[in-house]
Amino acid sequence: MKWSKRFKKNLSKKFISYNSSLNIDRNLIKEEISCLKAHVKTLLKAKIIKNFEKKKIINFLDSLKKININKKIEDIHLNLENLIIKKLGEIGKKIRISRSRNDLVTTELKMFIKRKTNKIIFYIKKLLKVILKIAKKNYKKIMPGFTHFQIAQPVTLGHYFLSYCEMYLRDLKKFENNFYFLNFMPLGSCALAGSNYKIDKFLLSKELKFKYICRNSIDAVSDRDYVLDFLYAISLFFLHSSRMCEEFIIFSNKIFNFLDLPDEFCSGSSIMPQKKNPDFLEIFRSKTSIVFGNLFSFFSIMKSLPLSYNKDYQEDKSIVIKSLEIFFSSIKILIPFIKKIKFNFKNMEKNSTKDFSLSTDLADYISKKGIPYKKSHGIVSNIVSYCIKKKKKIDYNICKKFLKKFGLKNINNVLNAKKSIRKKKGIGSTNPKFIKKEINRIKNII
Amino acid sequence: MKWSKRFKKNLSKKFISYNSSLNIDRNLIKEEISCLKAHVKTLLKAKIIKNFEKKKIINFLDSLKKININKKIEDIHLNLENLIIKKLGEIGKKIRISRSRNDLVTTELKMFIKRKTNKIIFYIKKLLKVILKIAKKNYKKIMPGFTHFQIAQPVTLGHYFLSYCEMYLRDLKKFENNFYFLNFMPLGSCALAGSNYKIDKFLLSKELKFKYICRNSIDAVSDRDYVLDFLYAISLFFLHSSRMCEEFIIFSNKIFNFLDLPDEFCSGSSIMPQKKNPDFLEIFRSKTSIVFGNLFSFFSIMKSLPLSYNKDYQEDKSIVIKSLEIFFSSIKILIPFIKKIKFNFKNMEKNSTKDFSLSTDLADYISKKGIPYKKSHGIVSNIVSYCIKKKKKIDYNICKKFLKKFGLKNINNVLNAKKSIRKKKGIGSTNPKFIKKEINRIKNII
Amino acid sequence: MKWSKRFKKNLSKKFISYNSSLNIDRNLIKEEISCLKAHVKTLLKAKIIKNFEKKKIINFLDSLKKININKKIEDIHLNLENLIIKKLGEIGKKIRISRSRNDLVTTELKMFIKRKTNKIIFYIKKLLKVILKIAKKNYKKIMPGFTHFQIAQPVTLGHYFLSYCEMYLRDLKKFENNFYFLNFMPLGSCALAGSNYKIDKFLLSKELKFKYICRNSIDAVSDRDYVLDFLYAISLFFLHSSRMCEEFIIFSNKIFNFLDLPDEFCSGSSIMPQKKNPDFLEIFRSKTSIVFGNLFSFFSIMKSLPLSYNKDYQEDKSIVIKSLEIFFSSIKILIPFIKKIKFNFKNMEKNSTKDFSLSTDLADYISKKGIPYKKSHGIVSNIVSYCIKKKKKIDYNICKKFLKKFGLKNINNVLNAKKSIRKKKGIGSTNPKFIKKEINRIKNII
Amino acid sequence: MKWSKRFKKNLSKKFISYNSSLNIDRNLIKEEISCLKAHVKTLLKAKIIKNFEKKKIINFLDSLKKININKKIEDIHLNLENLIIKKLGEIGKKIRISRSRNDLVTTELKMFIKRKTNKIIFYIKKLLKVILKIAKKNYKKIMPGFTHFQIAQPVTLGHYFLSYCEMYLRDLKKFENNFYFLNFMPLGSCALAGSNYKIDKFLLSKELKFKYICRNSIDAVSDRDYVLDFLYAISLFFLHSSRMCEEFIIFSNKIFNFLDLPDEFCSGSSIMPQKKNPDFLEIFRSKTSIVFGNLFSFFSIMKSLPLSYNKDYQEDKSIVIKSLEIFFSSIKILIPFIKKIKFNFKNMEKNSTKDFSLSTDLADYISKKGIPYKKSHGIVSNIVSYCIKKKKKIDYNICKKFLKKFGLKNINNVLNAKKSIRKKKGIGSTNPKFIKKEINRIKNII
Repeated sequence: MKWSKRFKKNLSKKFISYNSSLNIDRNLIKEEISCLKAHVKTLLKAKIIKNFEKKKIINFLDSLKKININKKIEDIHLNLENLIIKKLGEIGKKIRISRSRNDLVTTELKMFIKRKTNKIIFYIKKLLKVILKIAKKNYKKIMPGFTHFQIAQPVTLGHYFLSYCEMYLRDLKKFENNFYFLNFMPLGSCALAGSNYKIDKFLLSKELKFKYICRNSIDAVSDRDYVLDFLYAISLFFLHSSRMCEEFIIFSNKIFNFLDLPDEFCSGSSIMPQKKNPDFLEIFRSKTSIVFGNLFSFFSIMKSLPLSYNKDYQEDKSIVIKSLEIFFSSIKILIPFIKKIKFNFKNMEKNSTKDFSLSTDLADYISKKGIPYKKSHGIVSNIVSYCIKKKKKIDYNICKKFLKKFGLKNINNVLNAKKSIRKKKGIGSTNPKFIKKEINRIKNII
Repeated sequence: MKWSKRFKKNLSKKFISYNSSLNIDRNLIKEEISCLKAHVKTLLKAKIIKNFEKKKIINFLDSLKKININKKIEDIHLNLENLIIKKLGEIGKKIRISRSRNDLVTTELKMFIKRKTNKIIFYIKKLLKVILKIAKKNYKKIMPGFTHFQIAQPVTLGHYFLSYCEMYLRDLKKFENNFYFLNFMPLGSCALAGSNYKIDKFLLSKELKFKYICRNSIDAVSDRDYVLDFLYAISLFFLHSSRMCEEFIIFSNKIFNFLDLPDEFCSGSSIMPQKKNPDFLEIFRSKTSIVFGNLFSFFSIMKSLPLSYNKDYQEDKSIVIKSLEIFFSSIKILIPFIKKIKFNFKNMEKNSTKDFSLSTDLADYISKKGIPYKKSHGIVSNIVSYCIKKKKKIDYNICKKFLKKFGLKNINNVLNAKKSIRKKKGIGSTNPKFIKKEINRIKNII
Repeated sequence: MKWSKRFKKNLSKKFISYNSSLNIDRNLIKEEISCLKAHVKTLLKAKIIKNFEKKKIINFLDSLKKININKKIEDIHLNLENLIIKKLGEIGKKIRISRSRNDLVTTELKMFIKRKTNKIIFYIKKLLKVILKIAKKNYKKIMPGFTHFQIAQPVTLGHYFLSYCEMYLRDLKKFENNFYFLNFMPLGSCALAGSNYKIDKFLLSKELKFKYICRNSIDAVSDRDYVLDFLYAISLFFLHSSRMCEEFIIFSNKIFNFLDLPDEFCSGSSIMPQKKNPDFLEIFRSKTSIVFGNLFSFFSIMKSLPLSYNKDYQEDKSIVIKSLEIFFSSIKILIPFIKKIKFNFKNMEKNSTKDFSLSTDLADYISKKGIPYKKSHGIVSNIVSYCIKKKKKIDYNICKKFLKKFGLKNINNVLNAKKSIRKKKGIGSTNPKFIKKEINRIKNII
Repeated sequence: MKWSKRFKKNLSKKFISYNSSLNIDRNLIKEEISCLKAHVKTLLKAKIIKNFEKKKIINFLDSLKKININKKIEDIHLNLENLIIKKLGEIGKKIRISRSRNDLVTTELKMFIKRKTNKIIFYIKKLLKVILKIAKKNYKKIMPGFTHFQIAQPVTLGHYFLSYCEMYLRDLKKFENNFYFLNFMPLGSCALAGSNYKIDKFLLSKELKFKYICRNSIDAVSDRDYVLDFLYAISLFFLHSSRMCEEFIIFSNKIFNFLDLPDEFCSGSSIMPQKKNPDFLEIFRSKTSIVFGNLFSFFSIMKSLPLSYNKDYQEDKSIVIKSLEIFFSSIKILIPFIKKIKFNFKNMEKNSTKDFSLSTDLADYISKKGIPYKKSHGIVSNIVSYCIKKKKKIDYNICKKFLKKFGLKNINNVLNAKKSIRKKKGIGSTNPKFIKKEINRIKNII
């Protein structure tokens, strides 16, 4: 088969398969049909075809259930054209007018990403609801908070889980913001210079639910920023989730023993009979890097490409779909996974005061007695040093030794995790009172 | 020097230098002072310090001109504290209360990025104005438009340059959108759990010009999404510009000979006396990859990090500043560079009709006579094939040979680049009429 | 289904599919069987099984033609075990002894990569032969050589194509060097601590054709350096090829018109009837970025992973196979593609002296008359400047104007590309005499 | 200042600074002088200069102590030329003959990388010695070994640290292998086509200690594979080290409490008086991503660049030097850091048998009584499940319950970590006997 009469040689079979995007395109068949229907309507309006022709084509397209794909034809657009010609003859040969794959592929990819973004938003909200529920149920349970992955201060489970809500809320916002550029329609730009026909772009955009029309046809067929925006937002979602995976893997190690992972999503070892491994969390964590790699591949593809359309773009759909598959398969497990985690509250609370994690409270206590904080910091620093040496915990007696001049009446309230979290003030803090309010606030916005 | 009394050994000198962020921090001195002043005001409001103490500190901070940095002290925060203690004694030791570097560094980095983003926006607008001016001056000059980097159809210089305007307008929008998350204030989150003091966060945010307050202190000290957003936006700017660099490098090759680059920004060869090299464009193009690498590095840094603050974040400021330096040094040359490019209009126009670039117009012409486009496409394909074989251009005689049954009255209007561009219809197209309007539209929005 | 009796809940179906590596593993079935056969032999030697048991298992494995894969079983190892148990009963339950997937998966991946590396080397040599043939046929044809993508000096086509041979020869060397680490056998490391049985690792390594045995079982199951080495070598191959693709795309633009690409590997435009697009080269170029992304994904996966085996590694095979598919599908077209390119020698030669590309020869000519090169450089620089202003080429008359004091007898030999290339001296130069020798040298080493 | 007489306009100051590589070049001054000396010797041999001229130049170069750099001159090569002309007049103007920066910069960078690679090898060996010493001292101390970061089997500290030795030994090998391509000399390739003079490349290579001569001058000035090889090897070193950093950070968390980090390399918190943070390990871990980013940037820079020299390469030296600075500053601390870590052996040993980590030994014990391993695996799986339910450890009584039909004489030897490690067999295993031998083997090869 020759590509067209301009070519003297038949296409190489290997090249047909290398060049083909059918395996990917078939995911966009819905968008392809919508675009063709809209195109046909504008052809009618521009008086390029007649009403009966339009009707025949639309009816045929509406009647299509499954499309038999001819693998020798390089893409979905030419496949569909071919089908119509087979069915409707000459009429089918008219549709190609003012129709270039350059603007078509990017229009359809935008529509596809819009459709999928809505689905993504749905799942992130579902995830948020599950996390919120756990936060609510355990809003005043105590666990160690870490900085530099060393025990720092006691915090509440509610606070901890709400921090992930914040991240996922930002992700939601990112995906929602992406609609802005996704709503500029490239269709009608033709190859790159615009059409010789009075194609009604406003009709097109109305039919295809775009809000705006691309203002420059060279840019319209060259631009793939929206693909990067999409890959970027997915990368952030995975970045955030990878942190949770990492923590859950460590927290489920029996030395930490903070949580028991659900059997349904773990697997064992072929040689070690006792093993229960956090496979899901590990695979999720590694998929994060795959998603990053996709983003960076596409940055590297786009760099230094001359305008306008280049075949290099063909990888866009494949990258988008690979990232989507990873997203959906991962989040669909993450949601029930989180729901079924069991927490070892006792162990978490016990460890929350290890490593002198109430020292800041103690230093604040001292400062409230009139000592500048830098000095209080120094005194407590001394106490900690002493306790490490003597292998002791900070207690009333030790405080007395270092804080002779003070009354230490309430010192046991200071050296107490439950009291510590309640002393924290206002917006953002780990105080259960605030956490409760915050849970409600978030519930209302998703 | 020991870090504090909790440590038994002196710090290693090598470690002091490895751990130090002073060289980077010093760029944020302005933000550091603002934060400290706001902090002191809240300390007064919370009755932790007295009015005269507040005044002394603020006066001292206001009087500071150049800060003598002590390299043994690991960062700018402790340096400033140290200075105040030296000057004001005991009072200075009070400021550390409820003040953690964990929330401080991220607050200041957000403020810094806000400040720099405004500067970036200023320069991108400046760049846009220069490009618009060129587009306006040459709005109907003709050049070849490329797809697959093969000559495709004639377009106008105005159209070509406006396509870059579209990209830069998207970049503007990205930077402007970034303000949303940059306007959430982390300050007051303390180490990670919140403060034991009634620090007035609304006062803080008003003083520091943040619109919102972070809703979760764990997330507040953990989050670096805004750094990624910033690096991402810069990456897109460079991605777009790298395409222009690539084209200008090729266009200035004497075989293309579309443009002459300004002597002021080119250099020569030590051995080849004739050489004039597009060094600026090449360096700019390669800086694109450096900027991408920075984004990738930071993604890789953040992946799988447990909450909350980790010292790994310390690279954030350094990466941001490196990307900023690249941005400003590059755009400051790009602007005058573009302004001074000289175009070889004759050569551009001559090449605009090479490689049968008016074939689409010819096929449209045929279709307007009632032939379905797929057929017209085939006929012209045949004509092109014939011309290649005979080493001829498409002309009246050849058309006559293939299109016997048609009148070819207006065929010379079809085989004419100047007419071709004027036949393009509506929004986005290369038609000079539209380009003119579009230039005005953009001028009004920047 | 529960994973084992240690688990209380049935595995989630979604998780089974997420966790499964079967689609990938099936590529390694050959290696899996070899490993199992070798394992069984060592079990006999360690007297864990009896001779008749060994024979039964080996016979069964030898008889296997197609393996019916049970998708509920998470990988190929357990699938094969399951098959054996079904067929041989109790005997089959014995093979799992001292057999961990941790060492198995990495052993098999090494074997797989060794097998594929040999195939890669075969294809790179094939590619080299094709390029060498072109170089030989056109060893003294003249084309412009570029620096900064500006015309610099005339070079020969032979020289140009040999430069790609050098790159591919380096790639060959990289792949060959990779065998060193691929030849360390991890098998027998078991889960991570080593085996409780006297498994004869030397027997294993002999059976499986490894040269050395891993010296540390923790490292043996943790190490994936060899995967990175492989991805790195592939990345370099694509990096080199992407440069050729880029050049061929530009060279086939009709403004350059250096070469005609083979119809068999190009495609057209649905709207523009004249188009012949270098799709293959563009897709190849973009696959380069995919291959880079794979390398970086795997770097990002491995970063900061605690020892020893982590499920994150599971992506290794998938990444390797994806990169392999890209490699083979691409090189299999690249070879005939290059073979069928047609060169427009006239046009190449004509352009080789554009942009004053013989200036260095002229400056050398002047220096040979006793002028220090920096001065000669300045003089020719002046001549070029004059010619640009006057829109002239350098010729005898102009030289006379600037070089009054010299005899200019041989000046026409200097201003001649054919003579220029023959003046170049020795190893590495563009001189056809050297190129001819070099072609023979390379032919002998591949 | 104009670049040369071929340029009509003065160079822009901003461009001079953008284009300048002086800040980076100055690191290669040693190589620059060596190259110039070698060049002068070949000029003498080729009779282009006279003996007294050669001597004057060499003497001047030998007498140079500190070079006063003129920032207006764009690089070190032209700076040096300028100095010589100032000192020696006309003679200095002769040296530029047959001398191009295109081959010079890559020759010098290769020499520089060779020099630094030797230093890198020195430091990795030093690091290996420190690790070996720790391994030797604690070769039979017991710690938990992890898979999926869950406790898997007891291993020895010796075994654990030797696994890092294996990684660093591989890194050594990589750096050593890099010398092969670093030993091909590009000098004498001139701009890209070779020299018009009989420059003796063998003399050059002998003087500059290269083993081989580049076989293709186009490739010689285009090739930067050796830069990627270098960045790749550094990336692997950091990858390996990042895993150790990650483990040490977790191991020093007081819940694990496996080790105490040296005070000298840790720092505290401005607000939390008790904190001792593993800053060094965290910064090292994040530098890993910077090093990866550098590699990625350079891949992205090189992709699709046409031959031969492009100014894009200028980033090579800057990237190399940044990666080198990170390497040296990091390893110089890593070495004393590791040396000073204190191990909490008791805690490590105690945790080594947590989470039923001797289950594999138990299953092996059962199999040795004649039960196929898959069954033994099932039995122990049952025991573990029972113990989890009952919150018990595996002991004699529980075993009796599940293994009625067996004599359990030696069962306490099975349920014992110290015995477990000694049961492991042969090369690579955690058995202290083997570890001891292995330490000696490695000591002998570094």
